[in-house]
Amino acid sequence: MDNFSEILNYQWSKKKFLCVGLDSDYRKIPEELQKLPVTEALFRFNRAIIEATADHCCAYKPNSAFYEGYGLAGLEALIRTNEFIRENYPEHLLILDAKRADIGNTNLGYVKAAYDIFQAHAITVHPYLGREALLPFLEDRDHGVFVLCHTSNPGAAELQELKIDGTDLYQIVATKVSQEWNQNQNCGLVLGATYPEQLAEVRKLAEELPFLIPGIGAQGGDLEQTVINGLNHKGQGIIINASRSIIYASSGHDYGQAAEREAALLSEAIQTIVNNCRP
Amino acid sequence: MDNFSEILNYQWSKKKFLCVGLDSDYRKIPEELQKLPVTEALFRFNRAIIEATADHCCAYKPNSAFYEGYGLAGLEALIRTNEFIRENYPEHLLILDAKRADIGNTNLGYVKAAYDIFQAHAITVHPYLGREALLPFLEDRDHGVFVLCHTSNPGAAELQELKIDGTDLYQIVATKVSQEWNQNQNCGLVLGATYPEQLAEVRKLAEELPFLIPGIGAQGGDLEQTVINGLNHKGQGIIINASRSIIYASSGHDYGQAAEREAALLSEAIQTIVNNCRP
Repeated sequence: MDNFSEILNYQWSKKKFLCVGLDSDYRKIPEELQKLPVTEALFRFNRAIIEATADHCCAYKPNSAFYEGYGLAGLEALIRTNEFIRENYPEHLLILDAKRADIGNTNLGYVKAAYDIFQAHAITVHPYLGREALLPFLEDRDHGVFVLCHTSNPGAAELQELKIDGTDLYQIVATKVSQEWNQNQNCGLVLGATYPEQLAEVRKLAEELPFLIPGIGAQGGDLEQTVINGLNHKGQGIIINASRSIIYASSGHDYGQAAEREAALLSEAIQTIVNNCRP
Repeated sequence: MDNFSEILNYQWSKKKFLCVGLDSDYRKIPEELQKLPVTEALFRFNRAIIEATADHCCAYKPNSAFYEGYGLAGLEALIRTNEFIRENYPEHLLILDAKRADIGNTNLGYVKAAYDIFQAHAITVHPYLGREALLPFLEDRDHGVFVLCHTSNPGAAELQELKIDGTDLYQIVATKVSQEWNQNQNCGLVLGATYPEQLAEVRKLAEELPFLIPGIGAQGGDLEQTVINGLNHKGQGIIINASRSIIYASSGHDYGQAAEREAALLSEAIQTIVNNCRP
């Protein structure tokens, strides 16, 4: 099983909806690890978090920025982390949160990086250049493309809620991705949990698309509203991401156990809401 | 001289407007270099191109995608290339074409990568997440932020020309960057030479902003119209980028000489048009 959609549907069939965001920052990991060189420290931290949380999540989502900030050493840690996930947890989804997008052929470099070098099943992308520019991502049937739609940041509305004939830009993006960009059934949308009403709007416009939903936990999104508003008619369709609230649940020796506890609690909370919602 | 705006104004005062795009692809560089390992091959190719073209350009713009596609070896070549530029051509602008943008604090990783690891003076960014998300870039006064406005790709209009109360989205972006995002005088806009009318529209909306203009050469943008439409009232304001038409001017042993010839011709052609335009 190596295909984005297959893995996702398999995980949803097991009622797994939680994604652990590996936003691992060398300056924030436990002090005992900061004594090691960057690559080894970040890799060991991630490995411990992954081993502790794998039973409770369907996906891991490393954010590239945290690794790039440490140059080649950081990126080597990302490569080793992703290799570890693919080897040991082949049924978990690996989403590279890289928020890329360039013009047509230039994207081939990002495609190669994301899927060959970093071994991800899916990537996050910006919509601003349009479908034609994103074809190198969209035409790769085995890999998922999560298009930024309504992001979780406080200033997201500045562009995303501009009105085009009465329709917000993020809604236009949702409709385009759902109706025009998703010809290979490999598209999803990124929607911040901090905007539950917009999430509900987008579910109406894009019934079939998987939603990658950050903003729970440290960013303060409401879990119950997020799950209720994000679910599709099958009681599926959502990947709820939490990063800091899980990976930094403890800054002591027990960071793995603390991460497991937080991941288990969150996963069970999501499942309870999903079960109460089902038709 | 280490500040983005200082270097740019210095280069413009010397009537230098050409940017050489280092979109160096291991599979497209001369065969003699492909016998070397990736890092060495890409670095030597870039070094030869830089030495050949430095007299004729104001800036270099490596596109990160081409290097990321070769993993750590490619990124090491990018680091070595940029070190070479900063050490040997300290008066040339180094623009990292990475088209990044994440939410607030996550961008700190990209800021660190672009300016500390890759030593760039400026970076290209996506506007979709809004000003608030981009603050880590915008608040760094010494470094430039080129915001994608109207891109050069054939499908750019899909989102960028959506109409908000009669105004195209790219025009809204131009106005916002000019009037609200540019508080530290470090913003610019990316405008494709393949859309000369839109370029002229944006110059009316953003008189003070530097424009980074790709799309000349292989992409087919018209040079004369581009320069005329892009210049500001001082007869400056433009950075005209050419990549493939210069760096792949020859695939033989003479690739350096051929790149020099192309860069010289293009730089002189730009200067002639600028001189004919000046008030």
